[in-house]
Amino acid sequence: MNFGEILKGKEEEGKEKHVPEIEIIRGHGKANADFVRVVVGKEVPHPNTVEHHIEWVELYGITKKGQTIDFGRMNFEPVHTEPVGTFHVNNIDDFKAFCALEYCNIHGVWQNCIEV
Amino acid sequence: MNFGEILKGKEEEGKEKHVPEIEIIRGHGKANADFVRVVVGKEVPHPNTVEHHIEWVELYGITKKGQTIDFGRMNFEPVHTEPVGTFHVNNIDDFKAFCALEYCNIHGVWQNCIEV
Amino acid sequence: MNFGEILKGKEEEGKEKHVPEIEIIRGHGKANADFVRVVVGKEVPHPNTVEHHIEWVELYGITKKGQTIDFGRMNFEPVHTEPVGTFHVNNIDDFKAFCALEYCNIHGVWQNCIEV
Amino acid sequence: MNFGEILKGKEEEGKEKHVPEIEIIRGHGKANADFVRVVVGKEVPHPNTVEHHIEWVELYGITKKGQTIDFGRMNFEPVHTEPVGTFHVNNIDDFKAFCALEYCNIHGVWQNCIEV
Repeated sequence: MNFGEILKGKEEEGKEKHVPEIEIIRGHGKANADFVRVVVGKEVPHPNTVEHHIEWVELYGITKKGQTIDFGRMNFEPVHTEPVGTFHVNNIDDFKAFCALEYCNIHGVWQNCIEV
Repeated sequence: MNFGEILKGKEEEGKEKHVPEIEIIRGHGKANADFVRVVVGKEVPHPNTVEHHIEWVELYGITKKGQTIDFGRMNFEPVHTEPVGTFHVNNIDDFKAFCALEYCNIHGVWQNCIEV
Repeated sequence: MNFGEILKGKEEEGKEKHVPEIEIIRGHGKANADFVRVVVGKEVPHPNTVEHHIEWVELYGITKKGQTIDFGRMNFEPVHTEPVGTFHVNNIDDFKAFCALEYCNIHGVWQNCIEV
Repeated sequence: MNFGEILKGKEEEGKEKHVPEIEIIRGHGKANADFVRVVVGKEVPHPNTVEHHIEWVELYGITKKGQTIDFGRMNFEPVHTEPVGTFHVNNIDDFKAFCALEYCNIHGVWQNCIEV
């Protein structure tokens, strides 16, 4: 058994939307900085109650040399905050892909990756 | 001894800037959502090397009824990402204050609060 | 306002027990390693439901030279796990004190420190 | 691309040992509690320097009904603490498998699962 087998993705998506969407935001603000944003339930909001909610999202980048970088995890508090995490990424052109994970306390761990 | 005694703030600030700045961003985006952003070293960037860096920032809100809400912690990866965390806050008018903490692997835990 | 002011401790303890207890465990196991354990509700268990639970504990050490070291945070899942975190501490004799924080989703942030 | 593809396991193990080992500890202490321990580098310690270290371990359980439960993540501080996380597990007989992940700041994300 392998942890990869318990990850769910677009194929398992049902009525409630779990797959973390990954957006690249280039040249933001005065500092002209690059960000990658991870959002769960962008079009159809996921429930956000103490009984059923998204606990965290996290972002990984894969460099063109094949190294995996953990950009961090953002924890959420149900009811009070929504499941969106925005990660400042330095040297964004060194990366060939980004992957995001999220955890729903009822429906487990979901993943998504984009190639850039 | 009390954990409050080891927290550092504006009074202890030296050449390197550690105090987390707290900014309220109202009505952002299509969803007209409210965010609170925590930034370390906004004017003078803090070192960001594996030897010396900001490990995380976190945000707490204090409601008008006096309850403390943990909005989450954002972990950072030195070199690859900068110490800024953006927290989506629901019902922002229920809060009378926000406090942020951050941890520098060399200089310890720093705090800042704003009243709104 | 200062984050230290919103921390609660032994003086605020009521019927439900929140103050994190800190225990030093020396010379454990084959490796003769030292640990510091943080427990909430050792004598009187704290509620552990999705509506009301301890979300995390964390441990800091203060060295004899006055540096604050973050030994990490342990996140918990209500119902499925109990609020106890065990931190492996290297060079334990370099530390003069340990402080722990914990967060209850209803009653906020609680602290405790021991001098050694 | 799928996050499962970037996870490394026993097959990729080299001179340095990364695969998180999972140990079940039943009936520990006065409370007769069950724990699952995740250790990296049990036989051959992994480097533990600011330049090269294990940042965190985390534990997931898969119930006999197929639900994935996140037992939490334990963050580590290089040099000062070793990569071992001990998770208190309630109702351990409800689980058919446990999976652990760990992140090395140089060599990426590693996984291991055990069936029980």
